[in-house]
Amino acid sequence: LDAARRIVLVTGASGFIGRHTLAPLLERDFEVHAVARELPANPGKVRWHAFDLLTPGAAAQLIESVRPTHLLHLAWYAEHGKFWNSPLNLDWLSATLALIRAFADRGGERFVGAGTCAEYDWGAAEAPLDEKASHLRPSTLYGAAKASAFLSAQAYAVSVGCSFAWGRVFHLFGPGEDERRIIPLLIRAHLKGERLDCGSGTQLRDFLPVASVAEAFAAMCASDVSSAVNIGSGQAMSLENLSDRIAALAGRRGEVRFGVRNDSGPRVLIPEMKLLGQTGWQSPESLDESLALTLDWWESRLI
Amino acid sequence: LDAARRIVLVTGASGFIGRHTLAPLLERDFEVHAVARELPANPGKVRWHAFDLLTPGAAAQLIESVRPTHLLHLAWYAEHGKFWNSPLNLDWLSATLALIRAFADRGGERFVGAGTCAEYDWGAAEAPLDEKASHLRPSTLYGAAKASAFLSAQAYAVSVGCSFAWGRVFHLFGPGEDERRIIPLLIRAHLKGERLDCGSGTQLRDFLPVASVAEAFAAMCASDVSSAVNIGSGQAMSLENLSDRIAALAGRRGEVRFGVRNDSGPRVLIPEMKLLGQTGWQSPESLDESLALTLDWWESRLI
Repeated sequence: LDAARRIVLVTGASGFIGRHTLAPLLERDFEVHAVARELPANPGKVRWHAFDLLTPGAAAQLIESVRPTHLLHLAWYAEHGKFWNSPLNLDWLSATLALIRAFADRGGERFVGAGTCAEYDWGAAEAPLDEKASHLRPSTLYGAAKASAFLSAQAYAVSVGCSFAWGRVFHLFGPGEDERRIIPLLIRAHLKGERLDCGSGTQLRDFLPVASVAEAFAAMCASDVSSAVNIGSGQAMSLENLSDRIAALAGRRGEVRFGVRNDSGPRVLIPEMKLLGQTGWQSPESLDESLALTLDWWESRLI
Repeated sequence: LDAARRIVLVTGASGFIGRHTLAPLLERDFEVHAVARELPANPGKVRWHAFDLLTPGAAAQLIESVRPTHLLHLAWYAEHGKFWNSPLNLDWLSATLALIRAFADRGGERFVGAGTCAEYDWGAAEAPLDEKASHLRPSTLYGAAKASAFLSAQAYAVSVGCSFAWGRVFHLFGPGEDERRIIPLLIRAHLKGERLDCGSGTQLRDFLPVASVAEAFAAMCASDVSSAVNIGSGQAMSLENLSDRIAALAGRRGEVRFGVRNDSGPRVLIPEMKLLGQTGWQSPESLDESLALTLDWWESRLI
C-alpha cells in the first residue's frame, strides 16, 4: 500500500475512545476522516463528516463520499446504565452490518471494530479470557449485539476478502468518563473525603487508560492482525488495591467501605494479552501517571 | 393462555420445512397465519399473507395486521450452494431483528426461530454438539448470521420478557429437497443405476425427515422450553450406511464409489439430543419409512 493513500474513517470519533484515536492515526500517516452526529468546533487536521449512522442509507452515502481504505468503527450506543439492555444495541448491530458492506463494496481494505469483554462467558471467567479459546456467551443485550457484530462482520469480511480485526475492550478510565462509573466514584470519594459503599473489593479487573485503548485501536488499524484482540493492560488489580492507589495519589482518603454491597459481575474479569502486542502496541508500565491525570481532571471539576 | 387465542405467524411458510409446520400447528389448536412472498393456490385452513420480509417496514406492518401471540420464524435465504456465503445472510439477520422487535412491541408472547448446526464449532465436533456446552464458532457467513440472530434475538427477548426458543436443524431430507444434496444424489444413483463419486463414506451425520423437523418446530411453539434446542434423530449414521439403506429400499444399486473425493465438513457432525424431548416431540423409530416416501417421490420424477 502507498502510505500516502491510506485513508481511515473513524466512526464514534467524538466519543470517549474515539477522540483519542485521531492523533495516533495521524501519527501513523493516515488521512483521517471522522464521523460524528455533530461537527466539532476545532477540527484540526481531521476531516469531519456530520452523519447519524442509524439513518437508513447514511453508511453508504458516507463511504461513497470518503472512499476510505481503512474503517475504524467505534460508534455504538453507550449511555451509562442504559446501554446494557437497550434495544438501540440491535440498531447498532444492523448499522454495523450496513457499514461494513458499504465499505467492502467500495474497495475498503481493512475494517477494525470495537468489541467488549461482555461478549465472553462471564460465568467461567476465573482465568484470563482468551480471544480464541474462551466461549462467546454474553449475558446482556449489549454483549450479545457486539458478539453478533463480531461473528457476522468477520464472516462477511472473510467472504469478500476484506482484512478484519476486532478489539475487545475491558475496563478503561480517563478524563470525561461518566461520573457514575467506579473510578470517578472512587476519585470523588477520596478527593472530597466522602463515603462510598462498595462490594467486596476483591474482584479482579484490568484497567487501561482510555488514551492507551485508543493507541491500541490505531495500532490495530496500521497492522494486519486479523482476529479478535483483547485490549487490556495485562495487569489484574483488585478494586481495593485500585482504591488505595487513588487515595495515595490524591494524598487524601475518603471513607470507602468494602464488603457493604453485593458485587456485580464476576469475581475475575481479565484478558489474556498475547495478541495485542503483535501490533507493536505497548502497555503502559504503570497506571499511576494516567490515574494522576484523571485525578487532576476531576479535581478541577469537583471544587 | 386461552387456547382459542393462540395465534401463530409462520414465516418461510412455503419453504422446505415451513410447509410441513402448518398441519401440526393447526393440530395444536393454533390459529395459523403464514407469510410468504406469494400466496399459495390452496390456502386450506391457514390464513396467508403475501409479504417480502426484506422490505423495510414489512415486518412491523405484518405484525400489526396479524397480532400474533406466537411467531415461528423460518424464513431465510437458502439457495443450494449459494447460501453459505451470500451477503443475503446479513439482510436476513437484520430482518430477523426487525421482526422480533415488532413482535414483542405488539404483545408477542413466544418467539421460536430456526437455527443450524453451522452455528457450532465444526473443528471440535467429534462428540455430539451440545446446546449449552459447545462453542458457537461458525466457519461460514450463514452460520455466523444464524448464531448472531440467536444471540441477539435471545438477549432482546430476555430483556423484554418474551419467551424464546431456537431450533438448531442438523441434516434433513424429504420430498422437494434440492437435487444437488446428498440424499437426492444417492437416491438418483441407486434408482437409475448411475455412478456417484463420494468422499470417504465414514463421515457421521444425523438425518431427520423434514416432516419430523417441522413437527419439532410445532412442538417447540406449543411448549415453554426457552433455549437453543438441537433438532435431530439422535441416531448417527455414516454416509456409507445411508447409501446402503437407500439401495436396499430401492431394490437396486447404483455405482456409488466411496473414497474417491475429499470429504467436506467434519468427520462427525451430530447433535446431543437431551432437550427436544422436553417439548413432547418424539423421534421417528426408523428413517426407513421416510426414506421410502422420499424414494417414491423421486421415482415419479426420474422416469
